[in-house]
Amino acid sequence: MNILVVGSVAFDTIKTPQGSCKEVLGGSATYFSLSAQFFCPVRLVAVVGEDFPDNYIALFKKRNIDLSGLKTEKGRTFRWEGEYAQDLNTAVTLATHLNVFASFDPQLPESYKNSKYVFLANIDPEIQEKVLKQVRAPKIVVCDTMNHWIANKRRSLVKFLKHVDIFLLNEGEARQLSQEHNLVKASRVILKLGAKRVVIKKGEHGAMMFGGNSHFSVPAFLLESVFDPTGAGDTFAGGFMGYLAKCGKITERTLRKAVVYGNIMATFAVEKFSVGRLLEINRTDINKRLKDFKNLTGF
Amino acid sequence: MNILVVGSVAFDTIKTPQGSCKEVLGGSATYFSLSAQFFCPVRLVAVVGEDFPDNYIALFKKRNIDLSGLKTEKGRTFRWEGEYAQDLNTAVTLATHLNVFASFDPQLPESYKNSKYVFLANIDPEIQEKVLKQVRAPKIVVCDTMNHWIANKRRSLVKFLKHVDIFLLNEGEARQLSQEHNLVKASRVILKLGAKRVVIKKGEHGAMMFGGNSHFSVPAFLLESVFDPTGAGDTFAGGFMGYLAKCGKITERTLRKAVVYGNIMATFAVEKFSVGRLLEINRTDINKRLKDFKNLTGF
Repeated sequence: MNILVVGSVAFDTIKTPQGSCKEVLGGSATYFSLSAQFFCPVRLVAVVGEDFPDNYIALFKKRNIDLSGLKTEKGRTFRWEGEYAQDLNTAVTLATHLNVFASFDPQLPESYKNSKYVFLANIDPEIQEKVLKQVRAPKIVVCDTMNHWIANKRRSLVKFLKHVDIFLLNEGEARQLSQEHNLVKASRVILKLGAKRVVIKKGEHGAMMFGGNSHFSVPAFLLESVFDPTGAGDTFAGGFMGYLAKCGKITERTLRKAVVYGNIMATFAVEKFSVGRLLEINRTDINKRLKDFKNLTGF
Repeated sequence: MNILVVGSVAFDTIKTPQGSCKEVLGGSATYFSLSAQFFCPVRLVAVVGEDFPDNYIALFKKRNIDLSGLKTEKGRTFRWEGEYAQDLNTAVTLATHLNVFASFDPQLPESYKNSKYVFLANIDPEIQEKVLKQVRAPKIVVCDTMNHWIANKRRSLVKFLKHVDIFLLNEGEARQLSQEHNLVKASRVILKLGAKRVVIKKGEHGAMMFGGNSHFSVPAFLLESVFDPTGAGDTFAGGFMGYLAKCGKITERTLRKAVVYGNIMATFAVEKFSVGRLLEINRTDINKRLKDFKNLTGF
């Protein structure tokens, strides 16, 4: 089953306690695609500038990521600069240069419009809604957001949530949106806003899923060193959505396993700068980590 | 199998965002005993002042907690006053009046000296060692500590850890003792100091266990409202130790299940002030919560 992703392709400049890197491949759609493609073919919608190098295009293509929806516009590619403190939990944004991303107006190619599994990465909720309208009959709509949209486009976000099957957000965003500190209460508020399920990503503390009269909670996989947390959330989304699309059915069981796969894929993303680790691993590595995760959590 | 606990019996005055209470029953040995007694008989060693009321004595006795080791000294019972902020993660101590606890010099009654399951709650590590020497042939020694001893009695604590089978501490204490932020690395440092296993309690984020070439991690049970976190760690220890003593054997499997029981018992402690909830529940409630926990975490 094909997966559609709409989001950003960017260059990141990052400082973590472990080191730094300059203008490396990043962006929500990048991390998502390179994670989800282990499970199912991905159709990408994004915009880059004329400075976007051919070898990155080749990198996506080699992994069967459909680039019919990747537009190259006049100007420079989106750039983000951030720094993480010792606890690696939150990035401080040092600079954001939207460049061609500022006027991102995603138009789905005809060949994408029959997509069933739709992931709307962290972009303006009005654009998320506009994109979704172009999909003929989505089977499942998953979306992400960020503190900026919760603060500045709350009404649009809440309106859009009614079309969302699964809303992925991190614990800070869940608290911000719901105005509740307790995450069980927070999830209830968000479910009332319209999303059918809520998945709350808690970084080093794992993830939770609420909805469908069920609560699910898993710890994080234990890593001795987190190199760079950038993209972990989108890589989680890629594993989550990839597994669901591969199964082809949405049940409590497949959703729970999808959260586990999201969790596992995110652990690879943080082991190297940029998508370095995602390009190295194969299905055997993923299966091995799933086995280790079962050993870690079984009782 | 009998369980021996050495710790404090105290009066707590507490403020949380949910309310406040004055001079209620508290102390590490109190929470531990009232949790562990659901699994096995408990032998308590502690000291109280002349102001300690008979109805509390009756309360312990009714639950088959052996008080041969509870001494009543001239003076007032240990008092603690604390306040929790919105996130309920850490208490700010407003006042500590050690009173009779200041000269606590625990002497085991003869009838306690054959104890096999020994829990040394958070007291001066030199006293922990002195008590342990009085136990003839302990089968398993579990101990707790706190930031104060790590900062001020580090050498004694480290010396004592060589006698410890399982060291229970919270994530802040693990980081403080090991000087490592990452908890996998922290646990490795602590295991090298001598403890055979390390259990790290993470409050709302669950618990982890390291050692024996194995890592184990569980999320917390989800609670909609945490009323008062005081005593959660000692109640965890009571469930952990209680389950182990009931099984009578220490294997990877029983240890993991003991962490789960610790986790579950702690959730009851936080639902009311003082030991309120621990006095209300029965084995059926505990079994029900175990079932709910399995539903929460299974995939």
